[in-house]
Amino acid sequence: MELTQITQVDNVRLSDDGRAVRILDQSRLPNETVYLELSRAEDLYEAIATLRVRGAPAIGIFAGYAMYVLALQTKANTFGDFLSECRKNHDYLNASRPTAVNLRHMLDRMLAVAEAMPCMDIPSIQQAMKQAALAIHQEDIAMCTAISEYGLSLVKDGDGILTHCNAGPLATSRYGTGLGPLFLARERGITLHAWCDETRPLLQGARLTAYELQRAGVDCTLICDNMASIVMKQGKINACFVGCDRVARNGDTANKIGTSGVAILAKHYGIPFYVLGPSSTIDFTCPDGDHIPIELRDGEEIKSKFFEQPSSLPEVKCYNPAFDVTDHDLITAIVTEKGICYPPFDESFARLFGKTWKEEEA
Amino acid sequence: MELTQITQVDNVRLSDDGRAVRILDQSRLPNETVYLELSRAEDLYEAIATLRVRGAPAIGIFAGYAMYVLALQTKANTFGDFLSECRKNHDYLNASRPTAVNLRHMLDRMLAVAEAMPCMDIPSIQQAMKQAALAIHQEDIAMCTAISEYGLSLVKDGDGILTHCNAGPLATSRYGTGLGPLFLARERGITLHAWCDETRPLLQGARLTAYELQRAGVDCTLICDNMASIVMKQGKINACFVGCDRVARNGDTANKIGTSGVAILAKHYGIPFYVLGPSSTIDFTCPDGDHIPIELRDGEEIKSKFFEQPSSLPEVKCYNPAFDVTDHDLITAIVTEKGICYPPFDESFARLFGKTWKEEEA
Repeated sequence: MELTQITQVDNVRLSDDGRAVRILDQSRLPNETVYLELSRAEDLYEAIATLRVRGAPAIGIFAGYAMYVLALQTKANTFGDFLSECRKNHDYLNASRPTAVNLRHMLDRMLAVAEAMPCMDIPSIQQAMKQAALAIHQEDIAMCTAISEYGLSLVKDGDGILTHCNAGPLATSRYGTGLGPLFLARERGITLHAWCDETRPLLQGARLTAYELQRAGVDCTLICDNMASIVMKQGKINACFVGCDRVARNGDTANKIGTSGVAILAKHYGIPFYVLGPSSTIDFTCPDGDHIPIELRDGEEIKSKFFEQPSSLPEVKCYNPAFDVTDHDLITAIVTEKGICYPPFDESFARLFGKTWKEEEA
Repeated sequence: MELTQITQVDNVRLSDDGRAVRILDQSRLPNETVYLELSRAEDLYEAIATLRVRGAPAIGIFAGYAMYVLALQTKANTFGDFLSECRKNHDYLNASRPTAVNLRHMLDRMLAVAEAMPCMDIPSIQQAMKQAALAIHQEDIAMCTAISEYGLSLVKDGDGILTHCNAGPLATSRYGTGLGPLFLARERGITLHAWCDETRPLLQGARLTAYELQRAGVDCTLICDNMASIVMKQGKINACFVGCDRVARNGDTANKIGTSGVAILAKHYGIPFYVLGPSSTIDFTCPDGDHIPIELRDGEEIKSKFFEQPSSLPEVKCYNPAFDVTDHDLITAIVTEKGICYPPFDESFARLFGKTWKEEEA
């Protein structure tokens, strides 16, 4: 089957003329709905770096289309020149955000398509790259659907679910990962109550999660990040669902800054803490969380972004890590499209994915 | 000794003509430095309710001056009428914020001055109330100094201190409570590194704590509330210092929303968690945290206050508790002006304050 266009969701896809990546600019939600068509390398890079497109799976989908769109612009006449351009594009886009592993995975996959076709003409390679990009997107929809099913099996009608950051359709394709069970439950007439951490500094929870859930008719309540403890204590939360940007092979999980704090609170209050994400998020080359690079972002995001007036004096120092690592011993289960992994994670990963880190490193 | 005016600090005091309460409007910091002189009951109430004056001890000082300033405006000719006005003012101001116990304590104390003088003429009672208000202020300075000394004894040169909300001079009189050791250390040439939670939704950490510390030359770094976990994990934090709005007799402590989360994280990472406050904050009539009323504030504070654009859709529900309760078993010690109390708190309170809840209730 040849894939031509995927239109079930419209946050990331090829433009109608097939020469640009069309995205919903997430940095302007919820107040403005603006679509962008990007084809220049600098614009594609910028869209990732400034979070116009965000969420590890959505970045992966975007990266696939971006590699294809850039490959279309080649002036190379030889395979060698073409491949060298593809490698340059790969490395350039890969530098846009350091923590998410999907970005690199999908860039690697797109590059591998080109590398595997040394005897073909460039238009054929371009066509194969388009198919690969569409396949990445299609696979993500299938993965999210499976993850949502598994996640939904962990909760029951009437449960309160705490979420952090945004791991819904905007961050992925359909349903999402961390939010997938909430959307699926809504379709099935199962009532779940979402409690959304606003997720400072960039407010993905307020701007994106509450936006998506509200639009879909899921009951949701917005809280500040520091209110997670009180709602847990008051018995409002039956489970926590979060996405993930990179999972080490021991289960340590990098996700949006603040996730580890939510996990510690959940453990304290005896509430299950679930990480939901595609198995491609598991980095078998990474032994533990200490080996996951954490992106440090501009402190101005804390002090002035979104604020009418600066929230602090200009000379005040800020520390602004974009992610943190949640230790595997704080995680109840990691939910993937292939099944639910319980601790010890290295063993359940090996069982479910039929490989161990030794094979991956070999 | 007759007290006439207290000018060491200028966030709350009598106006120069002695007929109004003069405050630094904290709701406009750090971008604007605006002083207000308030004498109408509605304005005094509004200043507390909208956090123009905030911090339990500062509210207590303000309440003392407010009761005096309102008493000055009496048209009563008899003691009975005068006392009945004082009671009305007491009850009206007491309704402005429900969680802080200092407000009620200081209003009670001012009312008791009037109640105790049935044989005196009204000008004499007014004069006695002025003395009482100035004494409340003077005592607060002495208490904060003692608390800061005790707090400083718990840390050492070079330590990193995590703070939440604002419990500095702005929230009290001199030095502050939770921040007192940092200001005192600075005076003594001891280096402490402050890590300030910004403290959503009203950003007291960013607007007030970082402002005060930066102005005083204390090394400080601003973080979002959800970054407390990562800085603790990275070994940057040696102790947590927070203030308190009400302490139950078992040590359960109500303080700014998010405090309980910080305490849970500190316990997880093995970091001492200290509550600092005057002994007047201990409510011996309150058996535990479940009996402390938690103020619920308008959800718009989460969605739009301070933001250039709304952070979430207008129809999104918000939950906005202003305080939470930190369980006594998460608290390493409670530091008062009379000494440091370690668990079990009911016993150490009884030892230090020479009374038990049974006496208080009797």
